[in-house]
Amino acid sequence: MNPVIPVFGDLTDPELHHWLTALGNAIPGERFMALAEMTAEQKQRATFAIVANPHPSLLQQCPNLIWVQSLWAGVEKLLATFQQTDIKLVRLIDPGLANTMAEAVLTWSLYLHRQMHIYRQQQLNHTWQPLPYVAPEDRIVTLLGLGELGRAAAESLIKQGFQVRGWSRQVKQIQGVHCFHGSEQLQAALDGADIAICLLPLTPQTQGLIDTPRLGMLKPGACLINFARGAIVDDQALLASLESGHLAHAVLDVFMTEPLPKDHPYWRHQQVTVLPHISAQTRADTACKVVARNIRQYRRDAVISDAVDFTRGY
Amino acid sequence: MNPVIPVFGDLTDPELHHWLTALGNAIPGERFMALAEMTAEQKQRATFAIVANPHPSLLQQCPNLIWVQSLWAGVEKLLATFQQTDIKLVRLIDPGLANTMAEAVLTWSLYLHRQMHIYRQQQLNHTWQPLPYVAPEDRIVTLLGLGELGRAAAESLIKQGFQVRGWSRQVKQIQGVHCFHGSEQLQAALDGADIAICLLPLTPQTQGLIDTPRLGMLKPGACLINFARGAIVDDQALLASLESGHLAHAVLDVFMTEPLPKDHPYWRHQQVTVLPHISAQTRADTACKVVARNIRQYRRDAVISDAVDFTRGY
Repeated sequence: MNPVIPVFGDLTDPELHHWLTALGNAIPGERFMALAEMTAEQKQRATFAIVANPHPSLLQQCPNLIWVQSLWAGVEKLLATFQQTDIKLVRLIDPGLANTMAEAVLTWSLYLHRQMHIYRQQQLNHTWQPLPYVAPEDRIVTLLGLGELGRAAAESLIKQGFQVRGWSRQVKQIQGVHCFHGSEQLQAALDGADIAICLLPLTPQTQGLIDTPRLGMLKPGACLINFARGAIVDDQALLASLESGHLAHAVLDVFMTEPLPKDHPYWRHQQVTVLPHISAQTRADTACKVVARNIRQYRRDAVISDAVDFTRGY
Repeated sequence: MNPVIPVFGDLTDPELHHWLTALGNAIPGERFMALAEMTAEQKQRATFAIVANPHPSLLQQCPNLIWVQSLWAGVEKLLATFQQTDIKLVRLIDPGLANTMAEAVLTWSLYLHRQMHIYRQQQLNHTWQPLPYVAPEDRIVTLLGLGELGRAAAESLIKQGFQVRGWSRQVKQIQGVHCFHGSEQLQAALDGADIAICLLPLTPQTQGLIDTPRLGMLKPGACLINFARGAIVDDQALLASLESGHLAHAVLDVFMTEPLPKDHPYWRHQQVTVLPHISAQTRADTACKVVARNIRQYRRDAVISDAVDFTRGY
């Protein structure tokens, strides 16, 4: 029988139990247990583990780990811990996740494109004022980040008729997307855009990337969507840009501190839509299929797919 | 030279002048004039006219009219006038309009599907509470009305993965849509639906169609979108259903009286999104192409396309 697979997480978190059930149902022939409920011998035998909600010190309890599967696409919180070990970290690269994110990008792009943020203000003031219709082909939407999520989002926006630009660290090519890359082309990607959407991984290079000069490159009346990580956007710069009227609205799903503190100005800001980190919720059904494939490949061929490159950070 | 084509509308309305310019630019070889600025002889020679904002009595000023082109898809306000004459009334059947409506249907369906109406309430209460993700294939969206607009909307919803049902007066078949028809199948179309979208023409049969029993057929927590005509929905039934919690939210773009009166309860209702009749704004660029084609066909072959059938009312 295969060794038990530890699942890292907090026993008091319903999410952990949800995952234990989902993984057990989806992957027959494997046994999954919460780390806290495993014996010392079981921990000793484990060569890989699943991370639901990570706590760095837990890694030391399983001395023979070769790799760890994260249930999240973003792994920046785990990097510091793993860089000090030889353990490989595997991100969740889940086509279901990319679909959910692409759907979220389309949902809130259409929301802004059809001027819902302005009609909402008008409703608060009991104002009836139709605005001229702008065709999607006259809207420039810039995707920052062209990984799996960015690609899926781009396809969805193109199908809907938007003018799509993309920007990434390295050169990328996506049909129908005007692709830019590297810091020297960031201005060209943002210049005059109606909607900028952040899907970048959080790295030392992207921290605070969306600052006052970058926000200033967008078209007056433009909108920002951040579905990546809170720290990529400079909150003070964003608030100032909204205040000045240059930026019309921001849809924020991620924040420096989550849950967003009760007294944070974003909550009551009329030009900010606050979402509780739901743009690309991991779907247990599709995620378990990816985890099952990764486990199967490892059991059969000792192959570890989708391991994080620690030098680039994702 | 062809006779001048009268355009019916109010000289004080900027919309009329916008149309005169757009039509003149889009259709070379034809001259368009506001009716009020035409000579008696020009009116006498006109065999067809364009209606921007109609006023029934204006028809009598052009005694030789054979047909009139409306710039709107919905023509119920014109029916009574035209039924008493031999003048044919041509609706605007504009693929651009269908695209704009399909985009609006997708925009507000995604808004409700991704639970924006609930997250908005949570933001007002500074509440951080992610809700479980529901896949689009687990959402039933029912389209009431399967004309040009309904078909385009259905295609857009299917591409996005929703379970789509449709209902129409007569039998219709659309690939991927579970189609129902006639009053005896309305219950089957509405039963357990998550989102019901009204795209019906206003006729004696559809007036007040969305009433208490019909709203009660939807799934608890369901949402209603009305992009058709205000009178199709019973306002008191809708308010009661929202109050009871059976219906979670309504997106209303059309009302019994427009603009919606300042003191109407919809304006301040937290479960209602008020839009100022913008779901399918006529786009001058695409509409003018359709009008140009209709004029060309008539000039060349005396063919009048897309004339309203006065017995069915659209």
